[in-house]
Amino acid sequence: MNEPFEKNPTTPSSPSSPSSPSNPSNPSNPSNPSSPSNPSNPTSPMKAHVPDQQNGGDSSPSSSLQPESFQTSDGMNYAPKGRPNPVVGPGEFVFAAVALDHGHIYGMSGGLVEAGATLKWVYDPDPAKVKAFSAQFPQAAAADSLEQVLADPEVKLVAAAAVPSERGPLGLRVMDAGKDYFTDKTPFTSLDQLEAARQKTRETGKKYAVYYSERLHVESAVYAGQLVRDGAIGRVIQITGFGPHRLNAASRPEWFFRKEKYGGILCDIGSHQIEQFLYYTGCQDAQVLHSKVANYHHPEYPELEDYGDATLVGDNGATQYFRVDWFTPDGLGTWGDGRTFILGTEGYIELRKYTDIARDAGGDHVYLVNRSGEHYFNVRGQVGYPYFGELIFDCIHRTENAMTQEHAFKAAELCLKAQQQALRIS
Amino acid sequence: MNEPFEKNPTTPSSPSSPSSPSNPSNPSNPSNPSSPSNPSNPTSPMKAHVPDQQNGGDSSPSSSLQPESFQTSDGMNYAPKGRPNPVVGPGEFVFAAVALDHGHIYGMSGGLVEAGATLKWVYDPDPAKVKAFSAQFPQAAAADSLEQVLADPEVKLVAAAAVPSERGPLGLRVMDAGKDYFTDKTPFTSLDQLEAARQKTRETGKKYAVYYSERLHVESAVYAGQLVRDGAIGRVIQITGFGPHRLNAASRPEWFFRKEKYGGILCDIGSHQIEQFLYYTGCQDAQVLHSKVANYHHPEYPELEDYGDATLVGDNGATQYFRVDWFTPDGLGTWGDGRTFILGTEGYIELRKYTDIARDAGGDHVYLVNRSGEHYFNVRGQVGYPYFGELIFDCIHRTENAMTQEHAFKAAELCLKAQQQALRIS
Repeated sequence: MNEPFEKNPTTPSSPSSPSSPSNPSNPSNPSNPSSPSNPSNPTSPMKAHVPDQQNGGDSSPSSSLQPESFQTSDGMNYAPKGRPNPVVGPGEFVFAAVALDHGHIYGMSGGLVEAGATLKWVYDPDPAKVKAFSAQFPQAAAADSLEQVLADPEVKLVAAAAVPSERGPLGLRVMDAGKDYFTDKTPFTSLDQLEAARQKTRETGKKYAVYYSERLHVESAVYAGQLVRDGAIGRVIQITGFGPHRLNAASRPEWFFRKEKYGGILCDIGSHQIEQFLYYTGCQDAQVLHSKVANYHHPEYPELEDYGDATLVGDNGATQYFRVDWFTPDGLGTWGDGRTFILGTEGYIELRKYTDIARDAGGDHVYLVNRSGEHYFNVRGQVGYPYFGELIFDCIHRTENAMTQEHAFKAAELCLKAQQQALRIS
Repeated sequence: MNEPFEKNPTTPSSPSSPSSPSNPSNPSNPSNPSSPSNPSNPTSPMKAHVPDQQNGGDSSPSSSLQPESFQTSDGMNYAPKGRPNPVVGPGEFVFAAVALDHGHIYGMSGGLVEAGATLKWVYDPDPAKVKAFSAQFPQAAAADSLEQVLADPEVKLVAAAAVPSERGPLGLRVMDAGKDYFTDKTPFTSLDQLEAARQKTRETGKKYAVYYSERLHVESAVYAGQLVRDGAIGRVIQITGFGPHRLNAASRPEWFFRKEKYGGILCDIGSHQIEQFLYYTGCQDAQVLHSKVANYHHPEYPELEDYGDATLVGDNGATQYFRVDWFTPDGLGTWGDGRTFILGTEGYIELRKYTDIARDAGGDHVYLVNRSGEHYFNVRGQVGYPYFGELIFDCIHRTENAMTQEHAFKAAELCLKAQQQALRIS
């Protein structure tokens, strides 16, 4: 059975509320279906209404709408849980989880399961990883091999969080087996891998979807897309993003410190940032104007880059700056003080994604300043994660509403180029 | 008479308080006397102790320590008032205010007067400007000409806020008259002007001081220098600054829109940002790696640049990114949501200088996250503006404690270079 979106208890629909931004103009490039400026379904009932908690607004939502708690000490195991919001019934969309190298596989699998997908298989060559995964997802049968998963005609999608340098090659195998692929970011560690995947998607018609979790699995980031789409800040001209992460070196696998494996800091955690830039500005292409990397403070890990930043210009003139680092202080209550600043001609939005420092240890704080004033929204538990249901429908109906293939690849291409041309600071 | 610093009611000295950062390491370049990492007087009684308002700390200071209110609708007339903190008695240090083109002359004069300087003269060719100034500073006699001011041997310092392109030439005249010069930022609009001023300071031994108000006249920015100096965040590796300003186009003089006069957005309001970078990182020199400017939204002012940004690397490996713009939304309660983010190897500081959006319309919010936790300090009225008293002493004693000449010139040089090499986005 299909549950319609509007029954999702976490996404009450009140698009005409007086505290919603009222400017209906849509200034951005209309040809990008992944951009908030051109929603595939502009009247989507998935749109959330969130009362403005600074300026009064509606009554507060019930605390029963808060998401369950999740692990927050490092980003590697960030796997937010939302309320189930199934778009398909049991058995209607079957997937498998393989290559459990990065903890993001939990968030990826959880998001799909909450959206109604049926998790049939789990496979990893390391039995300990399979055991840990099965404890959280007991419905998944442990497969004997990747081949067994790929040979199962019931499986429509293979979710995987391999070592970054193996994500591209694994995707080729999955698509060759006639299945869609859903990989953790970063999707590639070389432009050659990207080109091979581009060709394979054309050849097979299959999808190479990417879990850019810092937007897709963050309610404040989803809500910001709605605000931009609604014209709350006019034309978007600049995005600044901070992506600090806690290092937790002792907990990291060996590949984490080998540049050939993880691809470099801009390629890895920088990919989130560039995806957000393309999304919020609605540009189709962009140019890396400058980028840099450094290892300031970790000589014991010579291949680690503990700092990186870049600035880009999009094909519509909007620009981006982002910085990423592994310097989250020990005293921060969560894994990183991720921020996104979206500057428009009529206002700006600031997202304090995972914490509002020295104020609120929870996440999903949205600050909006525009013509009408200064507004604060806490959207934790209010917006949900529409990506997963949209991805399932895209796989079933061969549409591109969750994210276009080109958008996913373009973000990958740009983070690889930013990495490739980065100035090394010492 | 000289009032010792420690009698300043706004700067209680409690350097050994348990809520002060405890890491005594001093990681930055020790050879820059303008840097917080190497205070000219490390036991200065001007150091403020501010209780941590998030984690308890000392009892709250009396509300009588709050500064008086000041105009906040645009940055041009930002002239914060502190409590008087005279370092010299009446007549001991005489100055004049000339060239009243930019409203910053009020903040410059007020800061000097509060520090005990005697304002003897005011001069501007426009009688209306003189009249307005005299209403606020009735002690200043209206001079008949600039020559009259320059011929007065009592006058030791000439403060001026000329049209930017005239600041350099005016400084040469002031120094040739045997007086120190104190100009509004930006101090120059061309590298030739800078070179002429460098030569003139060497030739005359006089000072060409610059009012980089976004640090010198902002208590949170002063306090951040103390935190950095105390080692609260380890080695400073990156500074990100946002300098948004309200345009208020109708209130702006004609020269504001002529690039030859104002020098470009990076040269003008970007100069504040680069000065802060040099100061907080303690670097002596830096390189502009990339910069850009745009006029996104104001075709009616073709020579206005409404957006600019730049990234620099210092001679000690620390880097900077800043963006400046004229897009402060109408609904913001003050002239700009200025921010400074100081990233160190052991923590970071965020300054919300003029407002804490949707939370507190007042300014001077300091957020510190380091090993010991997340800390919030509201330092409004707690720190004061030590620059002015130090400048007076520097003029009297020919020292460089307020700011070195080279630091003031280096910030100017770098903002001119950032402007010169900026990519034009359209």
